[in-house]
Amino acid sequence: MREETRRLAVLDRERSLLTHIGALLGWDQETYLPSGGVEERAEQLALIEGLAHDKAVVPEIGYLLSSLEAASDLEERERAYLKVARREYDRETKLPASLVTEKAKRTSLSQAAWVEARRNDDFRSFAPHLRKMIDLNLEMADVLDPEVPPYDVLLDLYELGSDEASIAAVFGRMKTDLIAILDKILGRPQVDDSFLQRRVPAEAQALMSEDIMDILGFDRTRGRLDTTVHPFTTTLGARDVRITTRYIEDCFPSSVFSTIHETGHALYEMGIELEPEFAGTRLAEPASMAVHESQSRFWENIVGRSLPFWKKNYKRLTALSRGALDGVGVEAFVKAVNKVQPSLIRTEADEVTYGLHIIARFELESDLVSGRLQVADLPEAWKAKMKALLGVDVPDDARGCLQDIHWSMGSIGYFPSYALGNLYAAQFWVTMKDEIPGLEAGIEAGDLVTILSWLRKKIHSRGAALTPAEIILEATGFSLNPGHYTNYLEEKYSAIYGF
Amino acid sequence: MREETRRLAVLDRERSLLTHIGALLGWDQETYLPSGGVEERAEQLALIEGLAHDKAVVPEIGYLLSSLEAASDLEERERAYLKVARREYDRETKLPASLVTEKAKRTSLSQAAWVEARRNDDFRSFAPHLRKMIDLNLEMADVLDPEVPPYDVLLDLYELGSDEASIAAVFGRMKTDLIAILDKILGRPQVDDSFLQRRVPAEAQALMSEDIMDILGFDRTRGRLDTTVHPFTTTLGARDVRITTRYIEDCFPSSVFSTIHETGHALYEMGIELEPEFAGTRLAEPASMAVHESQSRFWENIVGRSLPFWKKNYKRLTALSRGALDGVGVEAFVKAVNKVQPSLIRTEADEVTYGLHIIARFELESDLVSGRLQVADLPEAWKAKMKALLGVDVPDDARGCLQDIHWSMGSIGYFPSYALGNLYAAQFWVTMKDEIPGLEAGIEAGDLVTILSWLRKKIHSRGAALTPAEIILEATGFSLNPGHYTNYLEEKYSAIYGF
Repeated sequence: MREETRRLAVLDRERSLLTHIGALLGWDQETYLPSGGVEERAEQLALIEGLAHDKAVVPEIGYLLSSLEAASDLEERERAYLKVARREYDRETKLPASLVTEKAKRTSLSQAAWVEARRNDDFRSFAPHLRKMIDLNLEMADVLDPEVPPYDVLLDLYELGSDEASIAAVFGRMKTDLIAILDKILGRPQVDDSFLQRRVPAEAQALMSEDIMDILGFDRTRGRLDTTVHPFTTTLGARDVRITTRYIEDCFPSSVFSTIHETGHALYEMGIELEPEFAGTRLAEPASMAVHESQSRFWENIVGRSLPFWKKNYKRLTALSRGALDGVGVEAFVKAVNKVQPSLIRTEADEVTYGLHIIARFELESDLVSGRLQVADLPEAWKAKMKALLGVDVPDDARGCLQDIHWSMGSIGYFPSYALGNLYAAQFWVTMKDEIPGLEAGIEAGDLVTILSWLRKKIHSRGAALTPAEIILEATGFSLNPGHYTNYLEEKYSAIYGF
Repeated sequence: MREETRRLAVLDRERSLLTHIGALLGWDQETYLPSGGVEERAEQLALIEGLAHDKAVVPEIGYLLSSLEAASDLEERERAYLKVARREYDRETKLPASLVTEKAKRTSLSQAAWVEARRNDDFRSFAPHLRKMIDLNLEMADVLDPEVPPYDVLLDLYELGSDEASIAAVFGRMKTDLIAILDKILGRPQVDDSFLQRRVPAEAQALMSEDIMDILGFDRTRGRLDTTVHPFTTTLGARDVRITTRYIEDCFPSSVFSTIHETGHALYEMGIELEPEFAGTRLAEPASMAVHESQSRFWENIVGRSLPFWKKNYKRLTALSRGALDGVGVEAFVKAVNKVQPSLIRTEADEVTYGLHIIARFELESDLVSGRLQVADLPEAWKAKMKALLGVDVPDDARGCLQDIHWSMGSIGYFPSYALGNLYAAQFWVTMKDEIPGLEAGIEAGDLVTILSWLRKKIHSRGAALTPAEIILEATGFSLNPGHYTNYLEEKYSAIYGF
C-alpha cells in the first residue's frame, strides 16, 4: 500500500473520530441530557460538525488524491478507497461554507416550526420553511452538479447511483404489484390482532428487547440498548453501536419489532470490519441508506415476522409477556403481527402498504422540486395521492403531509431509500434461500448465524467499496428486480389471508 | 466592555465547549460505554484534548491579552477576566507540546501499571512509573517557573497562591489539634455503628439518593445522577452538571454521603452564573480545587452529618430504608455516621483522621519532589508516617502507598486541597452562624435555601474572579484560620463522645 494511502487514512480517521464524537453528543441528547443542557448541546454539535467538515476538506487530502490518481500501482482496496474518498472530498469541498451554515441555521428553524405546525395541525405556518428547504436543496444540487436535474442530484446523495428515472421504473412495477396484493387481502376476512393491545409493563418489554438482541446475535460488548421517544441506531465508535427503542404499554409489539429493526441496522454497522489500515475511513462505512434499510427490514420483516422465527422463540416471548399472550397460539400471533390495513401513518404501515406511502412521497417530492407542485398546494395533493394509492381519507395535515420529520430537516430525496430497502432485502432473501438449503428450517431450529454470516460476507464486510447496485449484483448475481419483493409478499400473505 | 474582551470571550468559549465535550466522553466512559468502545474512546479523548489545547493557545489570544493589558479603561469584571485569562494562557503556552504529549502517554502507562501493582500489592513494578511521573512534574515545574522551588510551582497549580511554606504552617497547627482531638476520642467508649451494615437494596438506595438531591436543592433540569465504580461530579455544560454514586448493599451510608458530597460539588458548578458575556469563559470556572472541596465537604459533613439535618430528614430516610433502620433513633444514627477511628484508607476516613492522611501525603510528596526521599524507600516511609500520625500499622502497600490514584496520574501537589477544603468549610460555617441567627434551627426546620444563598452569593457567583485567599477574606472577613476547624470538631465530637 502506498504511503499516500496511509496518510489519507490517517486524516480520514480524524474526521471519523469527530463524527463519532458528534454521534455521542446526539445520542446523549436523546437519552440522558437534562433539559437545561439543550442549548449548549446545540452549540457543541455545531462546533463538532464544523471541525469534522474542516478535517474533511484539508487541502492535503486533495493533493493526496491527485497523487494517488496518477499512480499506476494501486492495490484493489486502495483503488476502491480512492474512489470513495474522491467522491466525498468533492462533495464536501464543492459546497461553500456559507451554504452549509445557512442550511444548518434554516434547518434548525424549520424543524422547530414543523414541531409546532404538526402539533397545531397548521400547515400554513410551516409552508415558508418548507419552501426554504426546497430552495436550499435546489441551490445545493446546482452547486454539486449543474448539468443534472436537481432531484437526480439529491436522490444520488442518499442512494448512490440512483436517479429519478431508475427509481420511477422500479416503483412503477412495485406500485402495480402492491395494489394488486392489497386488493386480494382486502377481499378476505381481516385477521384478529386485538390481543396485541393487552398491557405489558415497560420493564417486561425491556426484558423482551434484551432477549431479542441476544437471539439475533447483538454483541453487547460492542453496543447497548436505551430508550428514546423515537427508536434509532447510532454509531459512536467502530466498536460502539447503540440502538434505542420505546415501550408503549398497550402496544408491546412496537418495542419488539423496533428492537429487531434497529438490531438489523446495528448488525450491519458492527459487521463492517475491514483491514485495520482502513478502520475509521470512508471505506469502512455503510454502502447507502437503502442498503442499511435492507438490513433492518430483512431482520424485522423477513425473519422477525416469520412463522419459523416465532416457532423457535415464541415460548420465550410469552414467558416474558406477564400473561398478555395467554391463550394465543404462535400462528395467531404471527398472523396478528402481519396484519395488513391501509392507514394514514407511514411508520405504522404494514409491509404491503408501506411501499405505497413511499411512492406518494417520491411523486410529491419530484413535483415539489421540479416546481410542478407549489408548496401551498401540498396538503391537497397529499390527500389526493393517499386516496388514490391507499384509498384512505386524510382528515388533517398533522396526519397528512406534516407527519414526517424529513422534509423539515431538508432531507429531500431520502424517502425512496426506505422502499428500496424492502426490495433489496427480498432479493437477498431469494438468493439466500437458493444458496442455503433448509434455510427456514434452520431459522426454526434457532440458527440465525448462517444468515448473519451470509449478510456479513456479501454485504457488511464490503463497507463502501461497492455501490448499492454493485452490492446487489455481486451478492445475488442479478441487478435489482422488484418482482422478488412481490413474490415474497404473495407467498407470505396468501398463507396468512388465504387467497 | 471593550471589543477585544468580547472577542477573547468568544475564543475562550470555543475552548470550553471542547472541554465540556471531553467531559461527556469521560462521563460516558464511566457510565454507559460498552467495553469494546474503550480503545477508540481513548483516541476520541486525546483528539478533543488536543483541539481544546489548540484553541487555548491560538496566537490571537496573546495579541488580545497584550492589547487589553495596555488599555486603561477596563471595567472591574474585565480586569478580573484579563488576569485569569493571562494566567491560563501563559500556563498553556509555556508547556511545550512535546512535554504535554509525553506526559499524556506516560500517564496512561503509569495508571495501567498502578492498577496492576495495587491489585498485586507489588510496589516495585510501579516504582519506575512513579519516578517518571515525578520527573515529568519536575520538568513541568521548571518550564512554568524556574525561579521557584518545584513543589511550590506544583502546589500553586492546584491551589492558586499557595506554596509549601504557607500550607506547612496551616497543616502544622492542624496536625497538633487533630491529634489532640483524636486522643480525647480514643479515651472514650466507641459509638455503635453496627446497624449501618444492614442490607439496603440498590434500588432503595437510589431512591434515597434522589430524595437527598431534592432536599439539597439539586436542580434536575440542569443535572442528573448515575452510577459508577467511583463517585464523581463532572460538568458537561454550563447547565449540565452530572454526579454519580455507587450502591454498596451492606453499606448504604456510602451512597447517602457520597451523594451529598457530589451534590455539594454540583451546587458550586451550578451556582457559577456570571453575566452572559462571560458565560463559558475561564472566569466562569471554580476558583480552585480546595474551594470546590470546601463545598462538597460543607454539605457532606457540616450539614449532612449534623443532628439538625437528620432531625428534619431522618423519617424520610427510614421510610426508604426497607426496615434497615428499624429501632435506630436519629441520635444513634447521627453518632454512627460520625464514628471516629484511625484507619488505613483515606477515602474511608472520618473528619478527624482525614486531615492526618493528607498531612502524611503532603510531607511525603514534598520529600519525593525535593529528592530527600527516594521512590524505592516510599513504602517504608509511608508506613512510618502512618504509624506516627495515626498509630496504625500498614500491612501492605496496596492499603498503603498504592491506595490512591493521584500520583499514578501525575497529580503531585493535589492532596493538600482536600484538607484545605475542610478548613475553608469550617471558616465559612463559623461566619455563616455569626451572620445568620438561628441557622441550625433553620436546618432543623428544613431551610437549606438560606445556606445555599449565602454560598452562592459569597463563593459560587464569584467564579474564578478571586483567588482562594481573596474568597476567604471577602466571605469571612479574615484570612484562613485553621482554628475554626478545630473548634468545629471539638464542639461536634465532645457532644458525640462526651469528652
